[in-house]
Formats: sequence, C-alpha cells, structure tokens
Amino acid sequence: MADERPPMPKAITRKSEDFDRWYTDTVRRAELADYAPVRGCMVIRPYGYALWERIQRALDDMIKRTGHENMYFPLLIPESYLQKEAQHVEGFAPEVAWVTHGGQRELEERLAIRPTSETIICSMFADWIHSYRDLPVLINQWCNIVRWERRTRLFLRTTEFLWQEGHTFHESRAEAVEEVERMLDCYRELAEEWLCIPVVPGRKTESEKFAGAEYTLSIEAMMSDGWALQAGTSHQLGQNFTRAYGISYSDRENALQHPFQTSWGLSTRIIGGLIMAHGDDSGLVMPPRVAPIQVVVVPVTRSNDAEGAAAVEAACARLEAGAGEVRLRVDRREGIRPGEKYAHWELRGVPLRVTVGARDLAAGAVTLTRRVDGESWTEPLEGVAGRLPALLEEAHTRTWARAETMLRERTVEVSSLEELGQTFAGEPVFANAPFCERPGCEEAVKAAAHALSVRVLRRDRSGERGRCLACGEASSEVALIARAY
Amino acid sequence: MADERPPMPKAITRKSEDFDRWYTDTVRRAELADYAPVRGCMVIRPYGYALWERIQRALDDMIKRTGHENMYFPLLIPESYLQKEAQHVEGFAPEVAWVTHGGQRELEERLAIRPTSETIICSMFADWIHSYRDLPVLINQWCNIVRWERRTRLFLRTTEFLWQEGHTFHESRAEAVEEVERMLDCYRELAEEWLCIPVVPGRKTESEKFAGAEYTLSIEAMMSDGWALQAGTSHQLGQNFTRAYGISYSDRENALQHPFQTSWGLSTRIIGGLIMAHGDDSGLVMPPRVAPIQVVVVPVTRSNDAEGAAAVEAACARLEAGAGEVRLRVDRREGIRPGEKYAHWELRGVPLRVTVGARDLAAGAVTLTRRVDGESWTEPLEGVAGRLPALLEEAHTRTWARAETMLRERTVEVSSLEELGQTFAGEPVFANAPFCERPGCEEAVKAAAHALSVRVLRRDRSGERGRCLACGEASSEVALIARAY
Repeated sequence: MADERPPMPKAITRKSEDFDRWYTDTVRRAELADYAPVRGCMVIRPYGYALWERIQRALDDMIKRTGHENMYFPLLIPESYLQKEAQHVEGFAPEVAWVTHGGQRELEERLAIRPTSETIICSMFADWIHSYRDLPVLINQWCNIVRWERRTRLFLRTTEFLWQEGHTFHESRAEAVEEVERMLDCYRELAEEWLCIPVVPGRKTESEKFAGAEYTLSIEAMMSDGWALQAGTSHQLGQNFTRAYGISYSDRENALQHPFQTSWGLSTRIIGGLIMAHGDDSGLVMPPRVAPIQVVVVPVTRSNDAEGAAAVEAACARLEAGAGEVRLRVDRREGIRPGEKYAHWELRGVPLRVTVGARDLAAGAVTLTRRVDGESWTEPLEGVAGRLPALLEEAHTRTWARAETMLRERTVEVSSLEELGQTFAGEPVFANAPFCERPGCEEAVKAAAHALSVRVLRRDRSGERGRCLACGEASSEVALIARAY
Repeated sequence: MADERPPMPKAITRKSEDFDRWYTDTVRRAELADYAPVRGCMVIRPYGYALWERIQRALDDMIKRTGHENMYFPLLIPESYLQKEAQHVEGFAPEVAWVTHGGQRELEERLAIRPTSETIICSMFADWIHSYRDLPVLINQWCNIVRWERRTRLFLRTTEFLWQEGHTFHESRAEAVEEVERMLDCYRELAEEWLCIPVVPGRKTESEKFAGAEYTLSIEAMMSDGWALQAGTSHQLGQNFTRAYGISYSDRENALQHPFQTSWGLSTRIIGGLIMAHGDDSGLVMPPRVAPIQVVVVPVTRSNDAEGAAAVEAACARLEAGAGEVRLRVDRREGIRPGEKYAHWELRGVPLRVTVGARDLAAGAVTLTRRVDGESWTEPLEGVAGRLPALLEEAHTRTWARAETMLRERTVEVSSLEELGQTFAGEPVFANAPFCERPGCEEAVKAAAHALSVRVLRRDRSGERGRCLACGEASSEVALIARAY
C-alpha cells in the first residue's frame, strides 16, 4: 500500500498545455496538500487546512443559523448495521474499507469505516425518537470519511476526505422537502457568496441519486476548463431508512409513523473546485472572503539605502498595525528577491499585494496589485490600511464576475443529440437541453460524446415544455449536460 | 461487535452510593454522550459536542497564539510505517485496529487506524525538512483516534476518541525542551482557567512515559472522589523518531543533523474530568467559560393569571434581548412544571438560573440561583442582564475555589510505604512523597494499596531533598501518588 510519491514539480505546468497536471502541480507547489504514503490519501498542509477552516466556519455558521446542532457519531459501523437498507448497501459496499482485527484479535463481525453515516445514525435515533415532540431532529457532524475509490486526485476524489454530513428527521414529507431545499441553498450561498463560484442547482437523475434516497439535489459548478464539478448534495430519503431501521413515533393522533428523513453533505472536494474555477498559469486565485492571507505586503529595498529601508519598514509596520480584521502578512524574508516573493504569493493566490518601495514612499504612495486580473495602481500610504476591506470586496466582485461571465459565455442550448455531439466536438461547455428522464435517453446522451453525462435537471427551468433531445417525446425538464469530474 | 445498549437510567444514582454509576448515569441523562453499537465507542450528543466545541475553541486559540498551524494527516497508516521506532510499535501494537480489506479486495499490506500520528507525520516530514531554515516545524491536528482498549468508559477511555495532537521539530534539544513545557502550560491554562480544574504538573516515570519518548510531562487533576485523572500529556521525543524515520537537515555549519521532536495531546477525556471534578448528586456543574448554556431563564406563571403571564414573558424577552455575548436560553416549554425545569437544567449544570415569577416581578425583581453552591437571591430586573457577565465570573471563581479547596484539603505528605498504606486505607487522596525513581520502588508503591500508582514527579517540587519513601535512599524528586482513572 505504501506508494512512492512523485517528486515535487519544480514549476507548475501551463494550464493550456495540460489542465490535469496544472491542477496537481498547483495543489502541491502552493502547499495546499500532498500525496500521503497510502494510495489515494492526502495530507492537507497548513495553507490548505487554513482555507478549509475558513470554509468550515462559514458553512458551520449557516448550519447553526438554520437550527442544526453538531454531534459526533462513531467512525466504525458493524457490517450488519450497514446492510439494512438494500439500495444503500448495494451502492456503498464496493467502496468500504473493512476493519477485521482489533488489538491482535480477529473480530466476530467486520466493521466498516464510515463511507457515510445514515446507518449508524438511524440505529441510534431508533432509540431516541418516540413522539412527535421529539421531531424535528436537526443535526450535523464534521468528520472524516473513507471510500475505496479506484482513481483518486488530490481534494477531488481521495480515499479519505473531510466533510460535514447533516441528518434530519421530520413529521411530514413537506417538511423534509423544504429542508432538502434549504440546505442546498446554503451550499449555493457558500459557493457563490464565499467562494465566488456560480452554480447550477438541480435534481440528479435516478441513476445518479444517492443510494437509498428518493431523490438527490446538487449544485454543479463550471471549472475553468468547462468541465462540471458536483460541489454539494442534499438528499430526500423519504421513509426508506426510517422503515428499514425501525424508527417510529406516535404522531399527534397517537398513531405510529415513520419519520421522513434528509441528509446533505459538502466535503474538502470544494477546495478542488475553488482551485479549478479560479486558478491560472501563475497558480491559485483565492476568493477574498476565505483567503487564509488576504493581503501580502512586500517591502522593496536597496542594499545601499539604509534610510530608504527604515522608511519602508516603518510603512510596513504601519500597514500591519492598521490592518484590523484584515488577514495581512508582511513578507520580511531575507535573501529573497522581490520578484521571487511576488511569484511566491501569486502561486498561493493572495488577493491583494501591497508593494512598499522607497521611491513610491518618497511620494507618499504604495503600489497595489490585484491577483485576479493583475491590475496594478498606486495609492497614498495614508489611509490605505483602512481602505483594504473595500479593496478586498472589489477583488471579490471581480473574481465573481469573471467566473460568472465564463459560465454565461460557455453555456449553450441544444435540441438534438446530433447538435450535442457537434457542440462537444469543440471546447467543453454546459449544454442545456429538453430531457424526458428515461434511462434510455440518458444512455444516449452519455454516448453522444466522450465523458458526457446529465449533471442535473435544472431547478430554475423545471416545467419548461419541450421535446427530449434524445427521443423527441414531450418533456418538462431541462437537463444540464456536461463533462464532469 | 454490535452490543446491546443498557437502557437509559430513570434517574441518576447518588454519588456517595456508587461513583461509577453516578458518572455514567450523569453522562447519559444529561445527554452529553451515549453508548454506540460498537463496543467501547460512543456518540457525542449535541450538548456534549457543544461543550467540546467550546473547549476546542479555547485550546485552538492557545495553539495558534503559540505559533502553531493546523494540518490534517491520513487516518490510515501502513503497517511498515508503524514499525520503524521499536519502543513505539511495542507500546501501540496491542491497541491497533487493522484494516485488511478495501473495496472487496484484500490489501497487500495491512493499514493501522491511527492510534497516534508520529509515524505518518515523520514519514511526510522526511521529505519536507532539508535545512535549518525549514525549522522549527510547529503543527497540530484535530482528529479522531482509535485504540482497542479492553475496558472502556464514556469519555474517559473509549475505543474511538477525538483529540488534538501537536507535533514539532526543532534544531536543538533546548528548544524542544522549552516547547514541551510551553504546551504543558497551555493544558494547565485550559484546565485551570477555563475548566476550573486545578492540576499538578509533573514528569511521568519511565514506565509510564509515551512509547518512544525520552520523557513525558502530564497534568494530573483530582476528581471529586479523590482519584487522579491524567488530563493532558506533552512528550519530548528527542531524536528517537527522526533517526528511525530518516529525517535530517543541514545545520548552520552545513552538517547533517536529526531534528529534535515533541508531541502533545489532549482529548475528549477532559470532558470526563470536568464531570467528575465538579458534578454532584443533581448532575453536572458546568464551568461558566465553556458552558454551552450559561444562563437559563425559567418563567413561572399561574394558569389563571393572564396579566401576570404577559409581564413574565415581557421580562423574559427583555433578558433575552439584553444578553449580548452571554449564552442565555429561556425555557418556554409548555406542560412542564417549574420544578421539573429546575431539575432539567441542574442535571445539565447550567451555571446560573433566573426564575421570573409574577410575584417577584410585581416588586421589580427576579430570583437568581447559582448551580455550584445552590445559593439563591433576588436582584432588580432592571440591569440584571448587564450584570450577567459579572455573575458568571463569580460562579467561575466559586467553582474554581471549591475544586482548589478540595485538592488542598485532600493532599497529604507521606514519608514511608507504611504511612502510604495507612493513608489509602481511608478516603483516596493525593499523597506526596520523596521518591528515588527506581523501578523497584515504583512497584513497591503500587503494591502499597489497591490501584495505586506514581502519577508524576512533581514539577513544582523537583530538587527537594529527601529520602525515598520505599528504599530510604537519597532522592531529589517528590512523587505524586494516587489512585487513577
């Protein structure tokens, strides 16, 4: 199992040359994460983990704001517990890592490392839910998950990953339906308002839904190569699990009922999405609201100018002192040329750079450079620290606008399989097409071009009448068709 | 593996009657945690997890304040990686849970679920540390750990637990020594200043140190039955692991060196300590600074007094609105008598209760009750919300004082094994005695009374000259001897 790690690349491959290599090079050289000795596992390095902490904080606040409480359930699930919901076990069994020995003894029953926690959670709540007064149950957990994936990529698909999984139980289907929508909307808010990634919300087809769910909603994001990434999912489980696990309660009329259930999850995969949505040939572009470092200050001095150096250091210290809530770092490393420092922080995607040089300072000014578009301008040193929040907001707006423009420009409408095939003969896009939801038509879509699939039935265009691009029959859904990670 | 869970007790056992049952009843009835279907695993329920989040936040702030960054390393460690440090593998192998199958295939090499992460961390940093410029490395991770324990108890010793583990690499032994002390002091600060638990810091004997360490420091806390709990440990690993894992760097003279290493950890076990240090026959007593709910407001109304009820609700709403940063909850549950509500929140250890009744209100007053000592008094409603932070600080001081008094009163000095045996014929205490550190003398101490052991060689009294209580030879250490969890 212990694999050789590939050596660290000396520079990042150009994006246009090889997107996949660009991605992996960027993740590793920007020190977000690296390969671990176990196949498909990764180490999340401090810069990557600081980013995850920011994302966690933003999402955890939303999860609590919407009335959920955090809990923690065990990592290990007895095999017999995993098997009670037939579709679920069928879906997950091929991906499970099994513990067979504990403390030098063979176990009587194998234990699964959780691939998701519905089964263990249901087995506990069977004891805790008795009456309608115990509902709704609104809980969440932050934890690690193991799924034995065949092909893995840093952040996007790893054997172990970190995530949150929300689990709720309700009296009525209507409440559960509402909850599934509410949490999908939290994911949309996280993606759009914190990560500057526009997303398309919709419903997964039958073949792509969560194993054991009635239906699954997801948000799909466009990466800068035009491929789609599923960035968060929210499942309506109906009574499938509560029936299988014997969870029942006395309702308001004193009759026994099975509660309706939802689950929803978002993982470290979103970091892969952030990288691929915004990054460029120089490396990462961090969305300002979650950037671990929002502003980097690079002092530029000459070795023979002590007076200038003192003025530069004084200006740096002043920026540091005035930064307030802004996450600002002064790069005082010695023996490294300014150009190297610029490249170092560009690779790491820091949204704003302030260059403090003696010549600018003589005129009372500093130079600012925005990562997302490379624009540079000078500002008076006086008051610049106080203007940083507004400048970061502007960087946020531009990062969002660029991603939003790309999504708009690379979205097309198609009405037949032939048109779909022709479209994907060129650059990948998001193709919208009327779709009837029949499995045969879904297969036909997949066959129309390499790696194509129906990502979602668009939430925002449901009810639109048309004729299925594959069979020509009447349809009232619009499918988002794309190549996907 | 799937065990039957014992039924939920109807009430908590009296502490004086059976401390162990009191403990488990309290954990379960206060809904901090409960047994999971896998032997020795637990579910941390929302109230317990909210407490853990508060503890995490306080400790994480200290960890970052002292210059450490968070990372995440994999859960699974190849067997060959675990085996490179001889003492370490000998110490941990009997407790390891092994993954032998992944996705329906048998693995070529077994994978350990991390019982601690030194081995995987060293294997990664062997690639990342090259020069003295890469040092110090100061990192930490929050994660889950699995150790196959024979006897388990909720929070105190569970097969899976949550913790943080810090790992650092340094140029010199002196720096590593300083780090070990610094982090032990963070644990002391957490225990004393946040959890109101006075602790005795010291060094573990050779037989009790971490497997692979040069030495281990720990903080020992007194539980309210007089037993000791090891609440946090900090290890000086010297070059034991860095040599075994081939971590080396060029020093300032360009010579190859192995860095010095430390590790330190604190787990969900501390919640068990908090319960046993402060709890009483009514249940938990939460230290105010980490209490998930700091103030509970109980409205008391009569069914035939609508006007009074309106005034009571208005006062409750006013308290809620004025609470600011104070974590305050109004218990508006219907159909539950005030006395039941009092008991409900006493069980959960809420530091302050505000009873809002129509009669008090007519005189412009409310009644306050402090959980730690049961004292009740009235205060004018006017301004009481603003006084809550000060009242919580007073509750903190009293909680601390009670624990500190107990530790002082139940600490004795002994000078011989005979005296030690006589002492432990009565109530358990913390016994201090001059001690020479020889293994034979440690065995003699253990044999002097049931469940006795040398907890630590006291940091605060090191260098005190005396004669070992067991062999009578000269000693310069004072052992803290106690019964321990």
